[in-house]
Amino acid sequence: MAIRIFVTGGTFDKEYNELDGRLLFKETHVPEMLTLGRSKVDTVVATLMMIDSLDMTAEDRDAIVRECGRAQEDRIVITHGTDTMEVTAAVLGRAAQGKTIVLTGAMIPYKFGSSDGLFNLGSALAFVQTLPPGVYIAMNGRCFPWDNVQKNRRTGRFEEIR
Amino acid sequence: MAIRIFVTGGTFDKEYNELDGRLLFKETHVPEMLTLGRSKVDTVVATLMMIDSLDMTAEDRDAIVRECGRAQEDRIVITHGTDTMEVTAAVLGRAAQGKTIVLTGAMIPYKFGSSDGLFNLGSALAFVQTLPPGVYIAMNGRCFPWDNVQKNRRTGRFEEIR
Amino acid sequence: MAIRIFVTGGTFDKEYNELDGRLLFKETHVPEMLTLGRSKVDTVVATLMMIDSLDMTAEDRDAIVRECGRAQEDRIVITHGTDTMEVTAAVLGRAAQGKTIVLTGAMIPYKFGSSDGLFNLGSALAFVQTLPPGVYIAMNGRCFPWDNVQKNRRTGRFEEIR
Amino acid sequence: MAIRIFVTGGTFDKEYNELDGRLLFKETHVPEMLTLGRSKVDTVVATLMMIDSLDMTAEDRDAIVRECGRAQEDRIVITHGTDTMEVTAAVLGRAAQGKTIVLTGAMIPYKFGSSDGLFNLGSALAFVQTLPPGVYIAMNGRCFPWDNVQKNRRTGRFEEIR
Repeated sequence: MAIRIFVTGGTFDKEYNELDGRLLFKETHVPEMLTLGRSKVDTVVATLMMIDSLDMTAEDRDAIVRECGRAQEDRIVITHGTDTMEVTAAVLGRAAQGKTIVLTGAMIPYKFGSSDGLFNLGSALAFVQTLPPGVYIAMNGRCFPWDNVQKNRRTGRFEEIR
Repeated sequence: MAIRIFVTGGTFDKEYNELDGRLLFKETHVPEMLTLGRSKVDTVVATLMMIDSLDMTAEDRDAIVRECGRAQEDRIVITHGTDTMEVTAAVLGRAAQGKTIVLTGAMIPYKFGSSDGLFNLGSALAFVQTLPPGVYIAMNGRCFPWDNVQKNRRTGRFEEIR
Repeated sequence: MAIRIFVTGGTFDKEYNELDGRLLFKETHVPEMLTLGRSKVDTVVATLMMIDSLDMTAEDRDAIVRECGRAQEDRIVITHGTDTMEVTAAVLGRAAQGKTIVLTGAMIPYKFGSSDGLFNLGSALAFVQTLPPGVYIAMNGRCFPWDNVQKNRRTGRFEEIR
Repeated sequence: MAIRIFVTGGTFDKEYNELDGRLLFKETHVPEMLTLGRSKVDTVVATLMMIDSLDMTAEDRDAIVRECGRAQEDRIVITHGTDTMEVTAAVLGRAAQGKTIVLTGAMIPYKFGSSDGLFNLGSALAFVQTLPPGVYIAMNGRCFPWDNVQKNRRTGRFEEIR
């Protein structure tokens, strides 16, 4: 059972530019994280974009839906910034492609020592292997269906809407 | 849906004693790891023992079975050394308690920088929330039923027997 | 031989705010770094300000000179952002207080895993114990007198002017 | 001013073998640590041996003295296990070669996250650049002449004998 991992950027992959003190995107760290986790899951990683999810446009989301449809795999993990993760999940959820799609991300960049990224990637890969078709968000060790999840802006945690 | 986490020790929780250069067990790091992962899963952590799984006796395994039976929760994660994880899984599997029990561990201690522990804990918590009753081993991002798993001593990875 | 450590902020002490994805200052990490280095040097740490050195004003620099003069200790380490470290060093150098003053900093925040901060703090503490009165910059394992040092903006490394 | 770094092993360079759970030596991490510290000191690294200092013999110490004598450089840092660091320092001190030689080490392996190694390497490199000819131990941010230093076995810290 091969799993496709689509990378879109987000906090997960942010790095610190030591020359100007700004945060930036270079390459994705997902393959390095899979190696660190000694993952033996059959995965194929592809980078769709490397952006802050606050900068993600409707066109970007259409591209994500299209790539999920095109992918040979029926099980897909998408790494995504947390700020608009629920928006992309909803677009994917309404597109209803009959696949199991799990979005995940991180509150702290993987390269910054105390990141939740490895925990989230481990849980996302597990959820995508076991859940029925549908679109989900895996954050904080939990998994939410796309139509009942929101990010609590005050705490930074994901929770049910109702 | 509350989840019980039973700690038994293993590489997961080994530390380096800077006074004599030996590896030792002190407290479990599982609560710290749940905090790092920003886990919002409803979990209760209890330490049953803090030992290398090569030192685990039949009595220890009986105690684990007994504690799993006694626990109020129907979903249980057990952190365990990888060397005899499949033995304990088999004892639990044969006891057939009608609960979802997931054993997990690490190849590198959590405190040693490049550990797979956080990845494994994330995946174990996800598998235990989604799988039907049974006993499983969650390692390397994958999940194996107790009666079809072995640790490959040469590679250190878990794999199906057949 | 007591050593005074004055904290002024800089990359050294920057942290990642997981709620808005910005870098910010909270408390200094210098005491934590001294603990990690198992330092037994007799040091007193005091925070003068917590700012990016690009925001440091002439008044701020006057305050630093004043505090160095007031300090009981004859040996002083100052943690400082690298962008204007040479400017503050020159102001201190011209004030000529007859003390050994060593400025140091970091290219990567201490909290971001791959920081040079601990290396620099170790070298600054060693230089301040051994050098004669004067004002110096300790970066990249080297030590430069205040009137013959500049930061190479392209490489991020410190070097002699002539 | 070129500086020779002789590697002899010690806690500094210990690694965790994930296949058998034992500590072992592979390659030295000193070059990686110099890169992390963004060192621009002119250094040449050579590995003399990779052993626990409890296993160091009189012949090993003779070899170290010989290599220090042979080295073109007048300033030498030696990485060494802390358990017998004072013994090797005394052998070097009595050999009286007219060079500045600084021994340093670590209480926690560099690869194990919370190591003091980077701090010690930074301070050793600074001490070796500034101290007059002689043999010293640089640990805990301090520097001790070879004939007035001992490791306190209870605390793991280095201190004066008198």
